[in-house]
Amino acid sequence: MSELTEKCTLARDAAQKLLSVSTAVKDRALDAIADALVERTDEIIAANELDLKNAEENGLRKSMMDRLRLTPERIKGIADGVREVRALRDPIGEVTGMWTRPNGLQIGRRRVPMGVIAIIYEARPNVTVDAAALCLKTSNATVLRGGKEAVKSNTALMRIMQDAAYAAGIPEGTLNIIEDTSRETATALMKMNGYIDMLIPRGGKGLIKSVVENATVPVVETAAGNCHVYVDGDADLSMAADIVMNAKVQRPSVCNAAETLLIDRSIADKFVPVIFDKLRAAGVELRADEAAKSISPEGVKDAAEDDWYTEYNDYILAVKVVDGVDEAIAHINKYNTKHSEAIVTESYTKAQKFLNEVDAAAVYVNASTRFTDGNEFGFGAEIGISTQKMHARGPMGLEALTSVKYIIYGSGQIRE
Amino acid sequence: MSELTEKCTLARDAAQKLLSVSTAVKDRALDAIADALVERTDEIIAANELDLKNAEENGLRKSMMDRLRLTPERIKGIADGVREVRALRDPIGEVTGMWTRPNGLQIGRRRVPMGVIAIIYEARPNVTVDAAALCLKTSNATVLRGGKEAVKSNTALMRIMQDAAYAAGIPEGTLNIIEDTSRETATALMKMNGYIDMLIPRGGKGLIKSVVENATVPVVETAAGNCHVYVDGDADLSMAADIVMNAKVQRPSVCNAAETLLIDRSIADKFVPVIFDKLRAAGVELRADEAAKSISPEGVKDAAEDDWYTEYNDYILAVKVVDGVDEAIAHINKYNTKHSEAIVTESYTKAQKFLNEVDAAAVYVNASTRFTDGNEFGFGAEIGISTQKMHARGPMGLEALTSVKYIIYGSGQIRE
Repeated sequence: MSELTEKCTLARDAAQKLLSVSTAVKDRALDAIADALVERTDEIIAANELDLKNAEENGLRKSMMDRLRLTPERIKGIADGVREVRALRDPIGEVTGMWTRPNGLQIGRRRVPMGVIAIIYEARPNVTVDAAALCLKTSNATVLRGGKEAVKSNTALMRIMQDAAYAAGIPEGTLNIIEDTSRETATALMKMNGYIDMLIPRGGKGLIKSVVENATVPVVETAAGNCHVYVDGDADLSMAADIVMNAKVQRPSVCNAAETLLIDRSIADKFVPVIFDKLRAAGVELRADEAAKSISPEGVKDAAEDDWYTEYNDYILAVKVVDGVDEAIAHINKYNTKHSEAIVTESYTKAQKFLNEVDAAAVYVNASTRFTDGNEFGFGAEIGISTQKMHARGPMGLEALTSVKYIIYGSGQIRE
Repeated sequence: MSELTEKCTLARDAAQKLLSVSTAVKDRALDAIADALVERTDEIIAANELDLKNAEENGLRKSMMDRLRLTPERIKGIADGVREVRALRDPIGEVTGMWTRPNGLQIGRRRVPMGVIAIIYEARPNVTVDAAALCLKTSNATVLRGGKEAVKSNTALMRIMQDAAYAAGIPEGTLNIIEDTSRETATALMKMNGYIDMLIPRGGKGLIKSVVENATVPVVETAAGNCHVYVDGDADLSMAADIVMNAKVQRPSVCNAAETLLIDRSIADKFVPVIFDKLRAAGVELRADEAAKSISPEGVKDAAEDDWYTEYNDYILAVKVVDGVDEAIAHINKYNTKHSEAIVTESYTKAQKFLNEVDAAAVYVNASTRFTDGNEFGFGAEIGISTQKMHARGPMGLEALTSVKYIIYGSGQIRE
């Protein structure tokens, strides 16, 4: 039996046993995991050093090296994250509705685990712990498959979590990591129908594309974010400048950062010079249409059709002048990835129109797109941000890791 | 541009316009559709006769011919179904939660359409109307692809619905049927990422398998039902007999009919002869394990391993004697398709255990599995029964055809 089949089978069997595990046992296990991560910091650091050495030999980019590196402080941060998950309310078992039919059948809708959740992710080893903790809190078994750069770190983290969780009463087989990081095994994981109830890819475009194309198990697509800020003619321009700067430069590498700025023609002459100066000062490369460029051309490149589609994740911003909210909405709905979109306006009618007609997971009036995040939304933690409409949309908290089951109490009813 | 690309593009554009269509307009369109179907009965019958003639020439089975046939009464029934959908509460626009964050952001979760829903289905032309009505009620555009046997009937029904709906103010392009019924086009439909937000297959195993294997768009898997009734040692045996007979023979062809009967060893000697006699009298073929067969062997075949996996959809029942509720649950969780499962017992503890530990969309105590149905659950109508855990599970009513969007009211918030 391959490692993959073996671990998927373990997970499926454990998922069944997890149905009878109480919140108290799960919380005890999460505490034990947090403690063990801190206690066994040296073991984690030693494994991480092997990954770092290997990465250096393979010429991994410096920014990637930094994401891969674990320090005692980072490990403490990861353990604190586990304690935060532990503190969340357990959604499993909640009955979200119960009603009685004319024939006397009592039908209840109960929140249950998904079963087995598979997650394929890239460099950062903290995902191993975050994902395992969220899945454990929701009584799901997990099959994790991290990147090859972090395999030693991930395996060490998993071993420590397994030891702690199983000693605390969690069924063996609940937590699994695939140590074979070949592409073939990842593809095989995407096709484990009958074992995997939900697959979540977390990573770059290439990974998401591969999952969408290859997976035969149910998938939640995550995280591509081509986000827009539209500065309306009726905007408070000082607020607009703050929001644009925040959405673009506060952390350009993330999926909820803005990639295109749309400016209403009626205020372009006034707003473009101000915002372009601020953006230039922050080191942002500008790619603008002719209308915007002509107002403040210094260092501005011409935007091409491709720019409207691009998620730069970098200090680059596409800029376009539009004729009002209708053109802004049309542009967004054509080019966006349905992640996060913002309008800045004092017009009630245009704000409502934007909220109603823009098709995205999160639509903002007078706020930065950067708030699309499980913590910022008040969900406590997230396993990713869904950009599909099925099952979950936007930041996925604990509820996104659950399914439902109808429980029906009868007294001998048969169907006529 | 192929018919498929053209219609998917029409649907995607219409989905955008549907965001601004009110419940009043949708309901008026549904009334108009119901009226038009009745008024234009002759046109439907004429198209249906072409399908029937063609089917006869191709030697379609008699039961399939019957499912394909439309009569004035059946058309009236279909129109009544549309009026029932019209009478349901529109879930679109409902805000299922709204909260204020410490920074003052007001975040609301609003129910929105999925966008474009594709449905691939087999012979029965009534699905064309049922599916279109449910999708229209929830502001979704549709791309339907029915079976080749019913293509003339489906096309006529679609033309009538389009005429009525568009005249009533529904955006053109909302309702589409793919007239090219080739397998290649069906496969291409399954891969229309960027156009299709959800694909629902409705049909036999072959269709579902093809969709699961080929689709790259999000799919809701439906309807395979290998359902069990477990008669516990503490059952009221008269109630148990009624439930077993109802679950097996009231309508054996449907997905919520029982396929395997599990009997607790402690009452097997008493219950097997009674229930076998009733089942034989109803023309049910019995395939039993040695323990059950030895008690009442007349005409009983030996059950093979394959029988535990089989959804007969016919007058056939597999029977197994088990050692109590634990073995019953283990058997069910191993062989079932996670559809509908029932226990008959007077034991409170065993009833609760069965509800908690059986993994299925609907789990019953002391009632027939035949109630797993949108109407019986009180949802008013259903587009299918999901047997996956993601997005929707069990009977899918209007809410299963919706997604969510977070609407965020700010006052200049930026992220620190």
